[in-house]
Amino acid sequence: MMMMMLKTRRTPKNIVATLALLSSSTTSTATTRNMSSGQQKKVLTLDTINPNVLTMEYAVRGPIVTRAVELEKQLTSKEADQLPFCSVIKANIGDAHAMGQRPITWIRQIIACVSEPELMKKHSNLPDDVLQKAALLLRACAGGSAGAYTQSVGIDLIRTHVAQFVERRDRVPCDPESVCISGGASEAIRNVLKLFIRPGINAGCKKAGIMVPIPQYPLYSASIEEFNLGQVGYYLDEENNWALDMDELERALRESPHDVKAIVVINPGNPTGQVLSRTNIEDIVRFAHKHRLFIFSDEVYQENVYAEGAEFHSFRKLMVEMGAPYDKLELASFYSCSKGYMGECGLRGGYVQFDNMDPEVYVQFKKMISAKLCSTVLGQIAMDCVVDHPNPGDPSYDLWIKEKTEVLNSLKKRAQLVTKAYNQVEGVQCQQVQGAMYAFPRVSLPDAAIAEAKTLGVEPDFFYVKQLLEETGVCVVPGSGFGQRPGTFHFRTTILPPIDIFEDMLNRFGAFHQRFLANYE
Amino acid sequence: MMMMMLKTRRTPKNIVATLALLSSSTTSTATTRNMSSGQQKKVLTLDTINPNVLTMEYAVRGPIVTRAVELEKQLTSKEADQLPFCSVIKANIGDAHAMGQRPITWIRQIIACVSEPELMKKHSNLPDDVLQKAALLLRACAGGSAGAYTQSVGIDLIRTHVAQFVERRDRVPCDPESVCISGGASEAIRNVLKLFIRPGINAGCKKAGIMVPIPQYPLYSASIEEFNLGQVGYYLDEENNWALDMDELERALRESPHDVKAIVVINPGNPTGQVLSRTNIEDIVRFAHKHRLFIFSDEVYQENVYAEGAEFHSFRKLMVEMGAPYDKLELASFYSCSKGYMGECGLRGGYVQFDNMDPEVYVQFKKMISAKLCSTVLGQIAMDCVVDHPNPGDPSYDLWIKEKTEVLNSLKKRAQLVTKAYNQVEGVQCQQVQGAMYAFPRVSLPDAAIAEAKTLGVEPDFFYVKQLLEETGVCVVPGSGFGQRPGTFHFRTTILPPIDIFEDMLNRFGAFHQRFLANYE
Repeated sequence: MMMMMLKTRRTPKNIVATLALLSSSTTSTATTRNMSSGQQKKVLTLDTINPNVLTMEYAVRGPIVTRAVELEKQLTSKEADQLPFCSVIKANIGDAHAMGQRPITWIRQIIACVSEPELMKKHSNLPDDVLQKAALLLRACAGGSAGAYTQSVGIDLIRTHVAQFVERRDRVPCDPESVCISGGASEAIRNVLKLFIRPGINAGCKKAGIMVPIPQYPLYSASIEEFNLGQVGYYLDEENNWALDMDELERALRESPHDVKAIVVINPGNPTGQVLSRTNIEDIVRFAHKHRLFIFSDEVYQENVYAEGAEFHSFRKLMVEMGAPYDKLELASFYSCSKGYMGECGLRGGYVQFDNMDPEVYVQFKKMISAKLCSTVLGQIAMDCVVDHPNPGDPSYDLWIKEKTEVLNSLKKRAQLVTKAYNQVEGVQCQQVQGAMYAFPRVSLPDAAIAEAKTLGVEPDFFYVKQLLEETGVCVVPGSGFGQRPGTFHFRTTILPPIDIFEDMLNRFGAFHQRFLANYE
Repeated sequence: MMMMMLKTRRTPKNIVATLALLSSSTTSTATTRNMSSGQQKKVLTLDTINPNVLTMEYAVRGPIVTRAVELEKQLTSKEADQLPFCSVIKANIGDAHAMGQRPITWIRQIIACVSEPELMKKHSNLPDDVLQKAALLLRACAGGSAGAYTQSVGIDLIRTHVAQFVERRDRVPCDPESVCISGGASEAIRNVLKLFIRPGINAGCKKAGIMVPIPQYPLYSASIEEFNLGQVGYYLDEENNWALDMDELERALRESPHDVKAIVVINPGNPTGQVLSRTNIEDIVRFAHKHRLFIFSDEVYQENVYAEGAEFHSFRKLMVEMGAPYDKLELASFYSCSKGYMGECGLRGGYVQFDNMDPEVYVQFKKMISAKLCSTVLGQIAMDCVVDHPNPGDPSYDLWIKEKTEVLNSLKKRAQLVTKAYNQVEGVQCQQVQGAMYAFPRVSLPDAAIAEAKTLGVEPDFFYVKQLLEETGVCVVPGSGFGQRPGTFHFRTTILPPIDIFEDMLNRFGAFHQRFLANYE
């Protein structure tokens, strides 16, 4: 303890915080606990619980965020004046409404009407298309109520609307039966991953390997760990704006100890913000075919494309355009109402749409999800409002397109701002944010800082990000939570804070970074 | 094939249906599939997917229900007149709104206001307590929007309301920190079960055993199978109105090949409708203590108690009243907005509340659920409206208590009716429905029917229930989906159809049963 205190003397006010962080670390594997005398030992202890729960990590909601919440509480307490900032800026999670983005009126009016149909009678100043759609959706609910269970795959009308949306987008037919509505894309992704689990596996057998990008969204690493699958990371090519590199995919597959069965692609990228080119996707499809891989295509940011010349291409569209044998690959595509211009994270609406899945496997998939009954009806309805939106001439169209455009334009502005601002800071490099809602800047950390982090037993980027939070109130997520090439350090920041807070955040960051460098160089 | 046709000659119109049922059975384990020539073998096939998904069953949404949905569709088609009934009566699932129960106004008004806060301005004829509560809940949402993520454990205000509700009910303090809001009780139950998983287990090791009642709600058997845990069934004592018998608990534990770690108790019972006595619960608590078991207390039907003299006692209340050492047992209690008088299944609101959990394990639990982000905010709000309802004198009280009382009185009436009606049928025995929403009558099946079912490779109660559906449109779930003593046959029916339909259902059943007996005796 004394040694640690000596080592950290250069930033004394961080000592307490850093120690607090270590003690609250979720990776703790303490194996002894105090027991009151005579008290029975607990059934569930760290020694007896599912070990994969112990080892899984979910950085987006990890100890940095826990600490940010504590600081927020402190700001409203008597001890607020002990903090060197007056607000916490949470740029840790893609949660647009939490950052002040307003809901899309079209979605909310319909949810309100479906929730309380009496409003449709009394509240006659709601637009006709809202009233009609709400009535249509209610008729699609058992007993005409959002309080009834739906089929586990979701309401048929909504599955049909999803299929029509996918068909319009891709100009490729889509069968409503291939669509399963879910409580956000995360639930659907986890459900599909479960099909690959090999229970009862022992040391002599291989785990099913799932290729995931590095850096990746930690839903994948956390779920792969929880499900005892094998993570096979492939590095994205940072210098090439985080594109997928075919040699690297081959290397990752070749060197993997697992029996690789699937590849995850996130496009537009999270946390990296790239939008994959047509050529890049075609190469990935060829790779998946060559090695017989199931494709997870995480396309939840398909509406979030900002860069000039960048365009979203769905995997299924390109697979069909490439023709045989590529159009027969097994593909699960995911979408959500949580991102895009909607940002309806809290309503939990999403879907998976399958292509070329073995029909017998699909029967099993549907059986498996039936044990969860169904996803929330109001979340399903939010998803419906996204895929079946007003068209020109409809009463709600003008407001809907205005709200949508404003959100997307503002995100575009921040995407441009963030790249420029980070690249102006010494020792920080930030690739262009072409899409999605994040930047993933690379930070050159001084050797002394890296050494100090190692002494404390934490990742250097964690050490850096923790100090950023303690000193400025800015909450971002360390790159190690997403994965990065060894010896490189990054953090993920969202581009969601409103422009004025966003500029404040960049200013706080710049000043902190200079102090940090001065302190350790 | 010919043999099967000969065997079923007595009920020729069932042949097609029975064969259809066999071909659509989710237990199919076909291992060969036709491949178009030149086509790559699929990555996911029945040979390669998670084998626990293959073996899990979820009868409440199984093939009988799939067939009922088909028949419903046929009734709206040109081929409707080929069916010997004009409506399908779905008594297979505890889905009150689907059966015509109306939503509680208090819940729906608040959800509508939270969804579209503009309504609170324009729509001034909403009661003040609705407006105030909606405003309070909105302030508890990040960014003042139901579209923001919440903490994974749920909104703090709602956790506090749950703790206050539990405290009022039990007269035992309850810490809001011990409450995790979930997307229905099912999600919470599955999350807690996951803590017991032993991945990488092989033939030489024991699985963690979970004691579940037989008959049980198939969420447990399905999840235990999916998670590769060991199910340890204990038979409920049918002749003693489905009470728990201590000798039987000891027998089940003693004979189990698994390392038994937990016991599940469903009170009031599903599918069996019993309400456990104080003495019975105390015995179970002693048993859990003796064998060091974690208790899952599934109390989702706590509002649904109908029988004279029956009373709901929560496990946590009785554990505390019993004092040391019983008040230190690890307990997870589950509740939901899907049942009770609310019946809000589609909104997906529920919670788990823990007592005596190891704090370090709880940290891990919270980390694990964080990978699922959060449960639906509107579902959380529905749960809040249940635990924090209007009180006498509040503007919404009169309507709320009227709606609540009407639902519960009507359920009580049906609970009495169902027991009486089934017991009047020859060869049918039905225990008193003391609580919950189901009856689980026992049917004496003729030997010839049992033999024919075995020839067809289906369970005799499945065979019976399938014919009931095909001939009368009444959809119930075979007892084998819940488990039953060998050689006994049951089915589960809900008591949810409205009185007139309910009586129609009992009439259809009685006539069918007579025909069935005449046919096979």
